[in-house]
Amino acid sequence: MRGVSSQKEDVHKAIHHIDKGIFPKAFCKVVPDILGGDPDWCNIVHADGAGTKSSLAYLYWKETGDLNVWKGIAQDALVMNLDDMLCLGITGPFLMSNTIGRNKHLIPGEVIAAIIEGMETFCANMANYGIEIYPTGGETADVGDIVKTVLIDSTFTARVKRSSVKEINIQPGDVIVGLSSYGQTIYEQEYNAGIGSNGLTSARHDLLNNAYAAKYPESFDLNTDKEYIYTGPYKVTDYVQQMPVNIGKAILSPTRTYAPFFKSLGAEVLDSVHGIIHCTGGGQTKVLKFVEGIHIIKDNLMVVPPLFQLIKQHSGIGLKEMYEVFNMGHRMEFYLPEKYSGELINKAKNMGIEAVIIGHCRSANVKLLTISSGNEQNIWN
Amino acid sequence: MRGVSSQKEDVHKAIHHIDKGIFPKAFCKVVPDILGGDPDWCNIVHADGAGTKSSLAYLYWKETGDLNVWKGIAQDALVMNLDDMLCLGITGPFLMSNTIGRNKHLIPGEVIAAIIEGMETFCANMANYGIEIYPTGGETADVGDIVKTVLIDSTFTARVKRSSVKEINIQPGDVIVGLSSYGQTIYEQEYNAGIGSNGLTSARHDLLNNAYAAKYPESFDLNTDKEYIYTGPYKVTDYVQQMPVNIGKAILSPTRTYAPFFKSLGAEVLDSVHGIIHCTGGGQTKVLKFVEGIHIIKDNLMVVPPLFQLIKQHSGIGLKEMYEVFNMGHRMEFYLPEKYSGELINKAKNMGIEAVIIGHCRSANVKLLTISSGNEQNIWN
Repeated sequence: MRGVSSQKEDVHKAIHHIDKGIFPKAFCKVVPDILGGDPDWCNIVHADGAGTKSSLAYLYWKETGDLNVWKGIAQDALVMNLDDMLCLGITGPFLMSNTIGRNKHLIPGEVIAAIIEGMETFCANMANYGIEIYPTGGETADVGDIVKTVLIDSTFTARVKRSSVKEINIQPGDVIVGLSSYGQTIYEQEYNAGIGSNGLTSARHDLLNNAYAAKYPESFDLNTDKEYIYTGPYKVTDYVQQMPVNIGKAILSPTRTYAPFFKSLGAEVLDSVHGIIHCTGGGQTKVLKFVEGIHIIKDNLMVVPPLFQLIKQHSGIGLKEMYEVFNMGHRMEFYLPEKYSGELINKAKNMGIEAVIIGHCRSANVKLLTISSGNEQNIWN
Repeated sequence: MRGVSSQKEDVHKAIHHIDKGIFPKAFCKVVPDILGGDPDWCNIVHADGAGTKSSLAYLYWKETGDLNVWKGIAQDALVMNLDDMLCLGITGPFLMSNTIGRNKHLIPGEVIAAIIEGMETFCANMANYGIEIYPTGGETADVGDIVKTVLIDSTFTARVKRSSVKEINIQPGDVIVGLSSYGQTIYEQEYNAGIGSNGLTSARHDLLNNAYAAKYPESFDLNTDKEYIYTGPYKVTDYVQQMPVNIGKAILSPTRTYAPFFKSLGAEVLDSVHGIIHCTGGGQTKVLKFVEGIHIIKDNLMVVPPLFQLIKQHSGIGLKEMYEVFNMGHRMEFYLPEKYSGELINKAKNMGIEAVIIGHCRSANVKLLTISSGNEQNIWN
């Protein structure tokens, strides 16, 4: 009812005829080496952004004056690209361009400066871990007749050897290692509540207090029925017992990147992996787009982190839909033979990332996903 | 007052410390060959889009049911990148990625399909003229809490030899050849009113009738004072005597590309050129960003095309500001020695593009731009 779909069926229908590139089983579209003309190489361009998370950054900034939340949004806009490309086994170098559409009546130059600075800071931090992201410029457009506050996207370009591109070829017998989306890695400055950049429309409206509806009509879609706008109990500055940051900053936790972890993996471990899934749009069901004739069984998920528990409590969303919208605790998963999983898990722990075998795969005559949690079992096909 | 600036001073301030790349005098930012590691090569990534023009496409589509206007918007989003890169002397090959942010309540899949199809059609048409634009995919996001209707951007990537990159080095004595933005080239299907993708906020509000304000509140910024919203006399389906298409389609004329013309130029002509300016944001004053110690004299401009005359008449904007916002008849200009201008003009005419020596350059102790038209002279420094 809020004009968001985790599956985007009509968009997929609109583009279904477009060619899938030279590695149709890869996580992102890969095209021939247009830029180099070398038959052994290939190009990848990937576009994504912070989505409606910037609407919450706006509200939080207006309430508190804290410009730093815009730096987090900048990270969101970058990591949504970076971590998709990690699933191909690519860790750079990357060219990075940004596209910012703003309402000049509401978003002054100091906000644009904070966003640009956030992108620079993130790239500099990644450089410390050997991840090269080269800023190539971008465009900031005044489009107040279209954009209510600000929309922040970025585009990544890479050129790599075809032989280094990982396709997804998940096998019966593989275990699934999940990497936590929450907590605090060695390369993060504070607690991350784990939401990433998906499910933000629900998180904002289901948790935040209706007083914001009258105060910030520019922060939501006027076409959405009023009964779905800011229906929660909280002010952004409220604290709940389980989290060390306030609700606003919890929802605004910058999307964690797993890039430093990927960079730390040896070639042998990476070669042993049959598939890497970034659990973004579609949440825990994302993997279904990349398998046939296999039963994915997730029966040992991590404890659901506090923020997702809070959203479930206040939204009334059932567990099945929660898994379709949110990552629910791990945003990256590796499918691989069990014997290689120990090293993967250790490397993750070295980075401060919790890693667990959250399930396994069996052969089946159809594709199937089962998520078991507590006494509840949900099945997708 | 409508939240748009042709100069974007605060944005430029926000990014002024960012490095200008390896060719600081080029029209676009150029970076080292991150993608190939070759010191003789370089990379360019460029992002831009259709801006608020899609708001008019929405209004026109709602009024008439004509989905084709979305194909024109797709072309706008591509040409704003393509033609900027032409100014470097680059005609491909390009990787092209798109970023579409939509309000799902208002923009259905059939519109997304028309936009994607428009991009494909444009690329196919360009391929007929030797311009290779390779679609790499993109992202369509449901962001109704931020986007009122739909925002359409694209990003182009190229990798070329450094020796082929044209910098801007305009010389005293150069003449200025302007290429018309209106009329009909041999590669366009109908009359083009010439507006491109700049000044659309003014064009829409100054020409269209206030009845649209109540009917389509989603087509403009509610933060803008009502007295500036749709203040003109026309319905989108109205005709004025001087134009063969209705007002709506005139304003929606897809941004003309000059790429086939560039591709037709011989190396000798291109080598003789001292600077190429794409007259987008800043209109006829754009060149001022790229010169020092020179007086640019534009004293033989083309006849102002009907659409700009109409905007001037109904907006009450003075001629000086008109030149700062709109291209006013030519959207691409070449600075070169007069002896090479004849061939340039002939090649343009072969493509159905009117080309005229619209002025010349003199040495000066400061930078200065003079535009003379009729009895009026306007000066910028």
